[in-house]
Amino acid sequence: MTSRTWTAALLVIGDEILSGRTQDRNVAQLASWLNVQGIRLAEVRIVADRQDAIVEALDALRTRNDYCFTTGGIGPTHDDITVDAVAAALGVHVVIHPEARAMLEAHYADRGGVTEARLRIARVPQGATLIANRQSGAPGIRIGNVFVLAGVPHIAAAMLDALTGTLEGGLPVLSATLGCWVGESEVADVLRDAERAHGGVSIGSYPFFREGRVGANFVVRATDQVLLDGCVADLAERLTAAGYPAVPGGI
Amino acid sequence: MTSRTWTAALLVIGDEILSGRTQDRNVAQLASWLNVQGIRLAEVRIVADRQDAIVEALDALRTRNDYCFTTGGIGPTHDDITVDAVAAALGVHVVIHPEARAMLEAHYADRGGVTEARLRIARVPQGATLIANRQSGAPGIRIGNVFVLAGVPHIAAAMLDALTGTLEGGLPVLSATLGCWVGESEVADVLRDAERAHGGVSIGSYPFFREGRVGANFVVRATDQVLLDGCVADLAERLTAAGYPAVPGGI
Repeated sequence: MTSRTWTAALLVIGDEILSGRTQDRNVAQLASWLNVQGIRLAEVRIVADRQDAIVEALDALRTRNDYCFTTGGIGPTHDDITVDAVAAALGVHVVIHPEARAMLEAHYADRGGVTEARLRIARVPQGATLIANRQSGAPGIRIGNVFVLAGVPHIAAAMLDALTGTLEGGLPVLSATLGCWVGESEVADVLRDAERAHGGVSIGSYPFFREGRVGANFVVRATDQVLLDGCVADLAERLTAAGYPAVPGGI
Repeated sequence: MTSRTWTAALLVIGDEILSGRTQDRNVAQLASWLNVQGIRLAEVRIVADRQDAIVEALDALRTRNDYCFTTGGIGPTHDDITVDAVAAALGVHVVIHPEARAMLEAHYADRGGVTEARLRIARVPQGATLIANRQSGAPGIRIGNVFVLAGVPHIAAAMLDALTGTLEGGLPVLSATLGCWVGESEVADVLRDAERAHGGVSIGSYPFFREGRVGANFVVRATDQVLLDGCVADLAERLTAAGYPAVPGGI
């Protein structure tokens, strides 16, 4: 294990997200999965089904992060252009992957064989390897530090399953939550002072309005359990001293 | 009305989204609202609570879109840095907005007055105007083509309500959906040909797996009702001819 921070970016590709038709689920799903791998989701972009937009985003994201994931646009229809765009960004040709073709031939053996349209999902950037998964005959794709996943969340999840434990990462981020029935501005100084007193720890404040009352959850994050526990205990004491006893685990 | 396309970008600011703790709702909410205004959501970025990341994203997004919205990071605590970052990106100072201060003074008149921490939410980039809203005493902020909204979805919604009808836009995008119980690769050619036969119309294909069967919804989009209706009718005929009668409205 190393103590450096490993980062990943996510590029969500799809008019259906930008039109508001489909609620994205892959940001939260990938973020949670990455954290278990000891990798931090550092940035996300959502772009339309346009090659220039995909290439521009991919160039920025893959060069300044350890890993870059994409979701969406890997189906067989005319609006699925992710493979072509990734190949263009990397300056390689698109080829038919022999293993993917074999998977399709087996799948369609007694259903009319592999047509040109069906063969589209065997297309990969030259040099890519496949990310097999149990949910779908259409595999994900890995090329360099770029991971091309499906847009449908449960298929993306199966592809992440297949990648679990295969990526180098650092220490997972640990977190603990304290909740208070308080308007966050009442304890803004308490939060800032507690964060300053504990190096290597960050505190986020997430207000809510529930049951007719204002409250906030304070999320303490660190990669070291001892540091985390120390900050949580200190913050709880400071909140109690300010007149706002905290609820461990959050509200 | 003009026929040019008006575009907007969204910058989502917040560690809570990138950590996977909070599911973003503002992308879909803003996209739907923008469409009614005749403005298209062209791109989204999600960045951490770090000034350099916010400034870089804001510079890119606000210069190449008609409008740029941000959500998140406008509360009173130490992790709320959006106002400072927007001011830095625009090269202006942060000042206390007199109307915002007056709103706070009224709100806290019988609750201990305005403390330094409470006053933090009256800070705006110099030259900004306020976006009042019925949900919260903390207003949104408009400066130039940048709109700074709350991260909490129902408060962001109230700020969008206040902006409804005030932004110049073009023609809203109209859409209609046809659903089919078919694997999308079976009709990939039909979809591509139908789109090519109807200029100004786009067709998206969104597959699903439900009740043990594969299917797909085909979403036809255009800004002209006659063009849209013509393409939908033609696509329905083509799908029927291919042996896959479509369900109007989608499945």
